[in-house]
Amino acid sequence: MKLMPQEIIAHKRDGLALSQSEVEQFVSGVVSGHFKDYQSSALLMAILLNGMTSDETGCLTEAMMRSGRIVELPEITRPKVDKHSTGGVGDKVSLILAPLVAACGLCVPMMSGRGLGHTGGTLDKLEAIPGFRTNLTDAEYRAQLASLHQAMIGQSADIVPADRKLYALRDVTGTVESIPLICSSILSKKMAEGIDSLVLDVKCGIGAFMKTEAEARQLAESLVAISARMGKPTSAILTRMDEPLGHMIGNSLEVIESIDCLKGKGPSDLMEVTYALSAEMLILGGIESTQEGAMTALKSAIDSGKALEGFRALVEAQGGDGTVVDNYKCLPRTEKTKDIVLNNDSQMYVESLDARSFGDAACILGAGRASTDSIIDPSVGIELLKKVGQAVQPNEAIARIHYQGIDLLEAAEARLVKAIKLSSKKPIVSSLIIDRISHENY
Amino acid sequence: MKLMPQEIIAHKRDGLALSQSEVEQFVSGVVSGHFKDYQSSALLMAILLNGMTSDETGCLTEAMMRSGRIVELPEITRPKVDKHSTGGVGDKVSLILAPLVAACGLCVPMMSGRGLGHTGGTLDKLEAIPGFRTNLTDAEYRAQLASLHQAMIGQSADIVPADRKLYALRDVTGTVESIPLICSSILSKKMAEGIDSLVLDVKCGIGAFMKTEAEARQLAESLVAISARMGKPTSAILTRMDEPLGHMIGNSLEVIESIDCLKGKGPSDLMEVTYALSAEMLILGGIESTQEGAMTALKSAIDSGKALEGFRALVEAQGGDGTVVDNYKCLPRTEKTKDIVLNNDSQMYVESLDARSFGDAACILGAGRASTDSIIDPSVGIELLKKVGQAVQPNEAIARIHYQGIDLLEAAEARLVKAIKLSSKKPIVSSLIIDRISHENY
Repeated sequence: MKLMPQEIIAHKRDGLALSQSEVEQFVSGVVSGHFKDYQSSALLMAILLNGMTSDETGCLTEAMMRSGRIVELPEITRPKVDKHSTGGVGDKVSLILAPLVAACGLCVPMMSGRGLGHTGGTLDKLEAIPGFRTNLTDAEYRAQLASLHQAMIGQSADIVPADRKLYALRDVTGTVESIPLICSSILSKKMAEGIDSLVLDVKCGIGAFMKTEAEARQLAESLVAISARMGKPTSAILTRMDEPLGHMIGNSLEVIESIDCLKGKGPSDLMEVTYALSAEMLILGGIESTQEGAMTALKSAIDSGKALEGFRALVEAQGGDGTVVDNYKCLPRTEKTKDIVLNNDSQMYVESLDARSFGDAACILGAGRASTDSIIDPSVGIELLKKVGQAVQPNEAIARIHYQGIDLLEAAEARLVKAIKLSSKKPIVSSLIIDRISHENY
Repeated sequence: MKLMPQEIIAHKRDGLALSQSEVEQFVSGVVSGHFKDYQSSALLMAILLNGMTSDETGCLTEAMMRSGRIVELPEITRPKVDKHSTGGVGDKVSLILAPLVAACGLCVPMMSGRGLGHTGGTLDKLEAIPGFRTNLTDAEYRAQLASLHQAMIGQSADIVPADRKLYALRDVTGTVESIPLICSSILSKKMAEGIDSLVLDVKCGIGAFMKTEAEARQLAESLVAISARMGKPTSAILTRMDEPLGHMIGNSLEVIESIDCLKGKGPSDLMEVTYALSAEMLILGGIESTQEGAMTALKSAIDSGKALEGFRALVEAQGGDGTVVDNYKCLPRTEKTKDIVLNNDSQMYVESLDARSFGDAACILGAGRASTDSIIDPSVGIELLKKVGQAVQPNEAIARIHYQGIDLLEAAEARLVKAIKLSSKKPIVSSLIIDRISHENY
């Protein structure tokens, strides 16, 4: 039955579960304009406050996925597995993981969004490489998946147009923090990619969207349950995001660190997360059946240089300068850097590095977007010379700011000084992997 | 502190009480356009679901009242008292009450809205009288209040512009049914009229906005409390709205019934409500100190013809044909009528007349507005030949439809037949007055 938008809104307002038809009328109304923005935002707030059942969230995800083109990749014979992260500071895992698991036998058809706020976007990082194109044509994309088994492109406007509209609206109406809305936004886009299965990195902590482990676990369980309903085996890895991941924040800097990782010189925290997600992908894709087998395959792909060569091939296929792999000089860099030294007069240890503040500082420097129309400066960023748990001698620098403008430096520095906590006692550093939420339980 | 709209929305979403500054930023943002419609509707939904404290509702009412021009009437020496009804079917009380209490010594500066949906508007009824103008200039309005002590006009666009925007938005976003929002909408407009005190008719039942007595009582208590905070003594009378009030529904028909009431020939249910509200006005205005005194004064104003002549003077002052008082022929009427007869083969009693369905049927005939741009037909309507509790013989008509188009007749009739319930037992008819909620308790 065709209802007026305000009738559908009233049902959710009154705490009822929306029917499949109501959810479909909402999503098609968002795309057609029959649901006005002011009606959508009222419904979004009612969903945020009154929640959605698993059935409703499933219907919403399906309807959103079907609001635009759904990619089908029947010509690809390899298992098609993608990874999605809920976002964190210094999270360049996609750049390492895609060539790595492609080297092990998977196909990775990765469509990403742009970064917004304190978390950087995969596309922005790749575009630091001169010539790199993230807007391949459909034919180029398919040809590359067939030959290189990996591609990293932006989502074209005809994929999940409902999310494009709703996400912009949620951002300015205080309706971002809703598990059913986050779930349907993430999964509708990933499921429209034509994948067989999916691995999710659900982060929690100061630098993540979900601050507590409990919230992150709830989101992960919901994501895994909805994916299972849609017939796409999906696992989620719960990971900590309290200090920035790895040592580099900023687009050129993160490309450098990613290539270092592919050369076997990656920092342990970044590699721990990359391996955990990659192993899960190999297992879900049916390439490996055990964690041990997966880890052996992954390490061998790094040690043999196969993953690194995969990255070079990816860069070249997408129009970028492949010599970046051998020589970082082709990347845009700042001329100026400033080291951050705290005034400790004896040896201290890094107790915490507030990831959120590091992300905000990088954004201030020009590495990220304050709004969707901001222009990114790929050269700027922050290098962590020390990570949590490491000793700091008097006058020893903890971080290095790569900057262009002195005014931006000052604003970023003021924030960073407050974001670093030292302690006289060496803190215990725990694993970043908190748990694995498996589709087998749903 | 100046906040972004989404920050204010987030506070209410998270169940916090908004500060006076936040409420004021919202209301001024609504008027200036700084708060976009999609942000306002998200906040309205959060208010509906998370509620508002009495302090917040008071701040909202004040801020809305101050969003436009506030009428001051220092030249009026009589007590200025107005009445507002939350709306019901056949509710023409204002047309009777204003000349009645003006005849007893009050000044009634009544600014009304248009009817929407199943409840008719006072202005629409008055405009059934040829020539009647509801858009007096400020000078005309003041002169008439000084000479006749009563005027009935539409709200000009510069009074409470925030409500004009918010009400239109609430109507299409499922955010009408919120006590803080209803309170602030009603009271901001009434308090901007420059009145000393206010009497509210808070209706409950099938034909009212509030379906249950509990909801209506909650609204009445909130209205009275907020008015008291604003220094305007206000009482609310809780009244039943299950069957239509009086015998007439439709604009010309309701003018006729109102004049009949002023001639002392009014139906008992309509007069019960009119007297209760009018007596409360006289007491609040300090003209009478007891119910008995007030009733004596009111009945004398009817019996002497003073109230009727006051109505004639009002009509003539506002450009209408004053002969309507003596001769209803000047009112637009339909040529065609159709009587509704149910198929009872023995004497039965009217058990119920579903006011909501009668209101909807009148709206279908053209007496009311389906949307704000609908055109009203003053001639059409429904006449109740029987009221609840009255006996109905076989083949005896229960209602008479005054119609123009046969297709509209059929649609209205189908609804009315279902809206009438007969019973073999005579039902007990109770008073329409449920309770009085006094400002003295707040």
